[in-house]
Amino acid sequence: MTTSSIPGYTLGTAEVAASPISDAEFALLKQTVLLGEDDLRWLRIAGEVLDDQIEAVLDVWYGFVGANAHLVHYFSGADGKPDPAYLGRVRQRFGQWIRDTCAARYDRAWLDYQHEIGLRHTSAKKNRTDGVVSAVPHIHLRYMIAFIVPITATIKPFLVRKGHAAADVEAMHAAWFKAVTLQVTLWSEPYVAPSAF
Amino acid sequence: MTTSSIPGYTLGTAEVAASPISDAEFALLKQTVLLGEDDLRWLRIAGEVLDDQIEAVLDVWYGFVGANAHLVHYFSGADGKPDPAYLGRVRQRFGQWIRDTCAARYDRAWLDYQHEIGLRHTSAKKNRTDGVVSAVPHIHLRYMIAFIVPITATIKPFLVRKGHAAADVEAMHAAWFKAVTLQVTLWSEPYVAPSAF
Ligand code: HEM
Ligand code: HEM
Repeated sequence: MTTSSIPGYTLGTAEVAASPISDAEFALLKQTVLLGEDDLRWLRIAGEVLDDQIEAVLDVWYGFVGANAHLVHYFSGADGKPDPAYLGRVRQRFGQWIRDTCAARYDRAWLDYQHEIGLRHTSAKKNRTDGVVSAVPHIHLRYMIAFIVPITATIKPFLVRKGHAAADVEAMHAAWFKAVTLQVTLWSEPYVAPSAF
Repeated sequence: MTTSSIPGYTLGTAEVAASPISDAEFALLKQTVLLGEDDLRWLRIAGEVLDDQIEAVLDVWYGFVGANAHLVHYFSGADGKPDPAYLGRVRQRFGQWIRDTCAARYDRAWLDYQHEIGLRHTSAKKNRTDGVVSAVPHIHLRYMIAFIVPITATIKPFLVRKGHAAADVEAMHAAWFKAVTLQVTLWSEPYVAPSAF
């Protein structure tokens, strides 16, 4: 699938809001999550490992969300029931996000799209991209932070699957953990007063 | 050291603010970070492994904070320079926190103290416990979330050190990761509007 055929995926376009993070602030964040050049190399390798497993990863994540009423709730339509069309649209962008996370160069277009993804989890932009009429205006911050665990833990079996040495799998997994935590950190920005972020 | 001899450590006392989290909400949070009974067992084992290594763990964490001007900044006094007395007081409570994290039964007293620790990172309570006059009124939320990585990654070498099988170290480490993310999630509550948490 080409990225331009994914509905609502707008990385690198003028529709995306500008990130309020400066380059200096972002550098300090990367430093705080211990993310260095080596991690980028391991993310690239993880990208190759995951490339033909994206649908299987999404099956696990969607299985987890679907099995938890308090989570699938956020994908509900006007009637308060999970909206399969909404779930399906977000799933395509989620698949692309796995590729983007592994390929990230952390440039301005990427930073701006992180801001956009953050906004899409808040009442500023949730439901807009897919034209959904939903009973739920935003994802609560508690689950954004808590999700670092399932999104990190459940990727491990997929990183193992191509026969890499245990130490290499560890390195891929550590880089993935840092990359996910970095992104959730950026996504938390629209949740708080600017002075508190 | 007995806990009652740690200045400002008030778990289980009437001085601690009450957590706004209900039992039902907390159960859903544990479910979201995939934290189960097995993890509690591994946390207990981690507690035994870490027991005589607490100072060494704190040396690593304080070394990291001290080496990063943007982090040690939060421990500064009125003159904007790191305050050794403040660092020292927090260090004692941080050591106790490692033990508490491994021994946690997740009861009301524990939940209330999580709320208290969250508040102590915000302008509601930072600096009060140690009577510090500081130029810095609160820890920014970005670093609270980002810190999940160093606090999780740097514990691993200490978990290895007592000769446990690799799979057991993994299980201890996974439980620690869940426990830390759960706590940062709880601590984020005073940072946001109640409706957004
Ligand atoms: C580590 C935490 C999370 C990650 C990595 C993540 C990832 C993503 C991605 C990549 C998208 C699509 C972004 C785009 O439009 O290009 C998305 C959207 C969405 N996510 Fe998350 N997410 C996280 C937390 C959560 C949680 C906890 C929920 C609640 C169950 C959730 C529910 C949603 C919903 C409903 C959308 C669609 C928002 C809209 O209307 O545009 N997400 N997420
Ligand atoms: C995973 C994230 C973090 C953990 C586990 C953690 C842990 C702790 C603990 C256990 C305490 C003592 C609580 C008590 O009073 O009993 C504390 C206090 C403190 N922490 Fe953190 N912390 C985290 C993030 C941060 C960050 C990012 C900073 C900034 C460098 C920071 C700076 C401080 C300061 C200045 C205090 C003293 C607050 C006061 O005045 O009472 N913490 N932290």
